[in-house]
Amino acid sequence: MNELIAVDRASSLVWEHAGDFGTVRVPLNKAVGRTLRQVVRAERDQPPCDRAAVNGYAVCSASIPSNGVLHVTGLQRAGRAPLEFPQNDGCLEILTGAIIPSGADVVIPGERVQRQGDFITVEPEALPEVGAFIDRQGTVRQENSPLLEPGIVLKGPVLAVLAANGLRDVLVAADPSIGVFAVGDSLIAVDDDGEEGLAPWEIRRSSEYAITGALNDFGFKRGQRRHVANVSHEIHNALAEELATHDVLILGEGGPFGAKSAVADALRDLGVNILFDGVAQEPGAAFWFGVGPEGQRVFGLPADSVGITVCMRRYVLPLLKRGQQRLIGKPPRVALAEAVHALKGLTRFAAVGVEHDQTGRALAYPRNIVVSGEFGSLLEVDGFVEVAPALTEADKEREVVPFYGV
Amino acid sequence: MNELIAVDRASSLVWEHAGDFGTVRVPLNKAVGRTLRQVVRAERDQPPCDRAAVNGYAVCSASIPSNGVLHVTGLQRAGRAPLEFPQNDGCLEILTGAIIPSGADVVIPGERVQRQGDFITVEPEALPEVGAFIDRQGTVRQENSPLLEPGIVLKGPVLAVLAANGLRDVLVAADPSIGVFAVGDSLIAVDDDGEEGLAPWEIRRSSEYAITGALNDFGFKRGQRRHVANVSHEIHNALAEELATHDVLILGEGGPFGAKSAVADALRDLGVNILFDGVAQEPGAAFWFGVGPEGQRVFGLPADSVGITVCMRRYVLPLLKRGQQRLIGKPPRVALAEAVHALKGLTRFAAVGVEHDQTGRALAYPRNIVVSGEFGSLLEVDGFVEVAPALTEADKEREVVPFYGV
Repeated sequence: MNELIAVDRASSLVWEHAGDFGTVRVPLNKAVGRTLRQVVRAERDQPPCDRAAVNGYAVCSASIPSNGVLHVTGLQRAGRAPLEFPQNDGCLEILTGAIIPSGADVVIPGERVQRQGDFITVEPEALPEVGAFIDRQGTVRQENSPLLEPGIVLKGPVLAVLAANGLRDVLVAADPSIGVFAVGDSLIAVDDDGEEGLAPWEIRRSSEYAITGALNDFGFKRGQRRHVANVSHEIHNALAEELATHDVLILGEGGPFGAKSAVADALRDLGVNILFDGVAQEPGAAFWFGVGPEGQRVFGLPADSVGITVCMRRYVLPLLKRGQQRLIGKPPRVALAEAVHALKGLTRFAAVGVEHDQTGRALAYPRNIVVSGEFGSLLEVDGFVEVAPALTEADKEREVVPFYGV
Repeated sequence: MNELIAVDRASSLVWEHAGDFGTVRVPLNKAVGRTLRQVVRAERDQPPCDRAAVNGYAVCSASIPSNGVLHVTGLQRAGRAPLEFPQNDGCLEILTGAIIPSGADVVIPGERVQRQGDFITVEPEALPEVGAFIDRQGTVRQENSPLLEPGIVLKGPVLAVLAANGLRDVLVAADPSIGVFAVGDSLIAVDDDGEEGLAPWEIRRSSEYAITGALNDFGFKRGQRRHVANVSHEIHNALAEELATHDVLILGEGGPFGAKSAVADALRDLGVNILFDGVAQEPGAAFWFGVGPEGQRVFGLPADSVGITVCMRRYVLPLLKRGQQRLIGKPPRVALAEAVHALKGLTRFAAVGVEHDQTGRALAYPRNIVVSGEFGSLLEVDGFVEVAPALTEADKEREVVPFYGV
């Protein structure tokens, strides 16, 4: 095996080669979950006009007669054109969000006045100062000011911002096309029971479900599985097709690149430049990454299921997000609730369940994974903590480490 | 307005009426993100046979000659039928996961022996005890033992468990059909600019995007928007159709039930029993809930966008998950980083951004929402904390409160 490179270095190399999957314009009702790739600006001032901040009465304060009695001549509703403001001794009932009709200079909250039929009585101490209870045009935002920056994911509240600003379609990141590729005929398909059921030495093909499942969990829908026999020219032809079709290619069969002669030969022939072959980590050391002649990103995942999950979460998904120019924060940090045995020279990804204690502290409880090759081991796991090689066991309980959720 | 009921009581009433949306059988490759509704049992023992735990040599320890030299007669690969074990002075090379051929009783790790051509030399001290480096059949799990319980969400690693156990299809929770309903003609559609653009008093219809967006964020895809004019018989007919079509109906126009005469009359006529009309909370007090004659759940959301987001997250989504019989944990608890002004008699849902400090503590920083009716206010918000009415401001910074992410 080649020399293993450090996790941070591998992560940087992957990140640097994320590229850009491009953009696509979609109608607003198809935009949920996509990554925004444009600046969204305010369609108009916010509020777009002077508006009532409460339910009450729009009044011209200088026109209130000495007895305080005003005739209510109409109801100004939100979303409706302004009514004509009445002459002397008149006022309008007004609802929250309605435009202030020209001529009114204050809104008196409804509970401050006495109403009888179409008349209200305003006591002098109930009259607010001029301009009160009016949300002034443009005080929250001005027309054309930026509302949303590229890189955010379009979720519930954000979609409403787009709608409120009249965007019927929106520029978003294109979804990368992702190939999930495996070689060999020693594994049994999920729907194959043979003639007499599964022989005890036979193993079902399951890794590809973990890979496409992880892609789906993070919103990447365009993963296509393909499986070819272990025959050199078939591998070569299939990989050539995959590279021509996909932005990202994930080989899900395990093992270092150097040991996979037919695959390695084909990828080299096809101009894929391997940037690293093996990472100083446990699990998932047999993880490699390369870049094709047109910038295609090619990942080789380890064979064991826990290693697959770690590599998908730590390397593949960040590249996919980065290629969409998504804004990505640092991973949250959690406190180790129990000692985790650090490894000399290897970063350890330890499976943990996370619980928040009574002080709001996120505590990571290590989960023992009996058999790394068994996905069932991951069922009680919320994610992985990254334990650096340098840590010594004595310090573990007080360590605070990055956390990657699954 | 009716008497407001407490948040916990409202939450319990909603929860109690979640019902069950039923089940559906889907092929494995369509199961991602769905809620499991069956017990999944081990297809066979795990491991399904005695298997090599390392790469090395399968040996019969009693047959090693005094010079320690063994003839390597073949390679036992994983997934392949067992080779015939060689007679005297023979052994088999074996790879991790391969079946132990009958006749071998120990695996010697590859690095412990010297190999020259087809021969290895085993020094006495390098020979492990009988049975070493063999994963015994059934030691992890026995055939037919339960692997997965109903109620979990099928994500990446779990899908691989299903595949590994030969489930080509799986029983999952049905997706509820959800109607999103609004009445009135005072709001302007996102794609309507009129002849001369939007008038300053006009308001775009945006709440429905926040509602369907929130549904999508949490994996509920079958939300259908409908909008009818404010005409009594049209409202009645439309609501009758909606109740006949959907499991859940969300009215997204705001205001207390008691104040919505045409909608309230229609729902009463159609046999919807209103369980509460108004919750002692801020924002979102004007939130109501009822149950139709066939158990349809009917929500009335408040008008303001922040209130909508809170009510979707705190009441509607838990009901949708519960109706799928999903396992749901308690909300995580976070520490308030700054004082939050509690409200007398009202539960306060305060918008916060959450950051993990250097000790792994999740700290909630209150975000000022300038205008509750504006979704843009939610962009820097990770979710809401629930501040009980009883809290006094002096205690806030040390309070640890439930958190609901958006």
